[in-house]
Amino acid sequence: MTDFAAWSRAVQARTEEALERVLPVEAIAPSKLHGAMRYVTLGGGKRVRPMLAFAAGEAVGADAVRVEAAACAVELIHVYSLTHDDLPCMDDDDLRRGKPTCHRQFDEATALLVGDALQSLAFEVLADPGLGLDPVVQVEMLAILARAAGSRGMCGGQAVDLDSTGRHLDLAELEFMHIHKTGALIQAAVLLGALASGSLAEEPRRRLQHYARCAGLAFQVMDDVLDAEADTATLGKTAGKDAAQGKATYLSLMSAREARAYAQELMAEALDALTPFGTRGARLADIARFIVERRY
Amino acid sequence: MTDFAAWSRAVQARTEEALERVLPVEAIAPSKLHGAMRYVTLGGGKRVRPMLAFAAGEAVGADAVRVEAAACAVELIHVYSLTHDDLPCMDDDDLRRGKPTCHRQFDEATALLVGDALQSLAFEVLADPGLGLDPVVQVEMLAILARAAGSRGMCGGQAVDLDSTGRHLDLAELEFMHIHKTGALIQAAVLLGALASGSLAEEPRRRLQHYARCAGLAFQVMDDVLDAEADTATLGKTAGKDAAQGKATYLSLMSAREARAYAQELMAEALDALTPFGTRGARLADIARFIVERRY
Repeated sequence: MTDFAAWSRAVQARTEEALERVLPVEAIAPSKLHGAMRYVTLGGGKRVRPMLAFAAGEAVGADAVRVEAAACAVELIHVYSLTHDDLPCMDDDDLRRGKPTCHRQFDEATALLVGDALQSLAFEVLADPGLGLDPVVQVEMLAILARAAGSRGMCGGQAVDLDSTGRHLDLAELEFMHIHKTGALIQAAVLLGALASGSLAEEPRRRLQHYARCAGLAFQVMDDVLDAEADTATLGKTAGKDAAQGKATYLSLMSAREARAYAQELMAEALDALTPFGTRGARLADIARFIVERRY
Repeated sequence: MTDFAAWSRAVQARTEEALERVLPVEAIAPSKLHGAMRYVTLGGGKRVRPMLAFAAGEAVGADAVRVEAAACAVELIHVYSLTHDDLPCMDDDDLRRGKPTCHRQFDEATALLVGDALQSLAFEVLADPGLGLDPVVQVEMLAILARAAGSRGMCGGQAVDLDSTGRHLDLAELEFMHIHKTGALIQAAVLLGALASGSLAEEPRRRLQHYARCAGLAFQVMDDVLDAEADTATLGKTAGKDAAQGKATYLSLMSAREARAYAQELMAEALDALTPFGTRGARLADIARFIVERRY
């Protein structure tokens, strides 16, 4: 078994190639839109969601070719949300993945359409009849992705985030926001990766969902810690913005030390949920550890 | 057979009820987002795309219950596109369907999220495993909707529209734009309505696509004529904006009289494509006539 660093580089490369293939080339009209979609999607990103999809596929023995579409779909939803989130009416950010944000590199209208079109593309990729998935499972995967992206998932979390700016949230409110804003799509990444195997029984599904919930929250706790502690160059996005914008973060409820301890607890719970998968769950375990131990 | 006015009122009422049912109620968090999604979607609109879906369903004998999901899905995509199109970075419009636009009634960030969440909801509605559709056909329907909404469909048309502002387009360029911007979703409405029957052979599919292409262009030609000739109160949206914004329209290429004649020609071609459907194609024929003869 290769080490985690090599595995994650391989997944990143595979995801990059797959995204490169599903994104229309610039030569196809409208050229500017397609160029901008490629600009925001390719050549960067930690690809945490694709990693989760591939690792969940390994945990239940899914064929990696089928997992690939699921990995692309969740990453496209993620990239669209970042593109819209960076817009002036939202976080008004200038830097993303070490490059100018889409509306800075192009213009606001293009960034709006890029996000819109990436969301459509996510569903198009997952609805490809040529994937060889059982169509019953494929419809379920599409339903899971749609629900995770929508108003009772990621978009809903963004709305709560907006409304909470400048307002104190308690831990329950903060976690409600994160479970929607980032948790829903992280859970979808894990479920879709596993469903690419063709089926998923109730018990492993419940365990994977619990893993995803804990890993997703740990990811967010560490994001808040890193946003406060790291510098812009290391993060590849503007550091310290959350506090400056009066956003509720874990660090407004606890010290950085307590937040790191909380992330460790969540990681332990995530690892515990993986027990029945034995060695097949090793990659998911690696990711949980990576999430908590990362520096960017 | 009831007359077209009664039929279209019945379809509008049915669509309204179905949309009312699929949109989360305001009591579900996040309340403001759900309220805004309902604000832009319910209580207005000509519901041309749902009418096309139901009429295409009738043309091939589809069960209306199954058509309903298709009708909702295309209308949700349409409403999301209007919401984003009205934003300051796009058309910057204040009035839509006789009411303040979403970003005027709420705020820009909410309007952005409303559009994003409505797009997700469209796919969620169509991916409902409880619809009783053959899952192979359901996956195809989802693929058609995704493609029609995306960068090689509606979003692509919007991008071409943006880039063409203040620039002269010839007829071929103008029609390329419209075939994407509005035509793709109109074609999807017709195809999805017909596919709700469970299957669609090559020949009727080709004919329905040709019908949709002609009817879609006729719709756009008449939109340009009405935008120039009608007043804001009749349209329910700001009249005369296209010319004021330097947008390419049919009226920059021909007189209003020539444009009306062109719309008539397109209508005749649309009606011709319906011949093999006999009386079952009557509603699609009614809609083609309505598109060309409407006053708003």
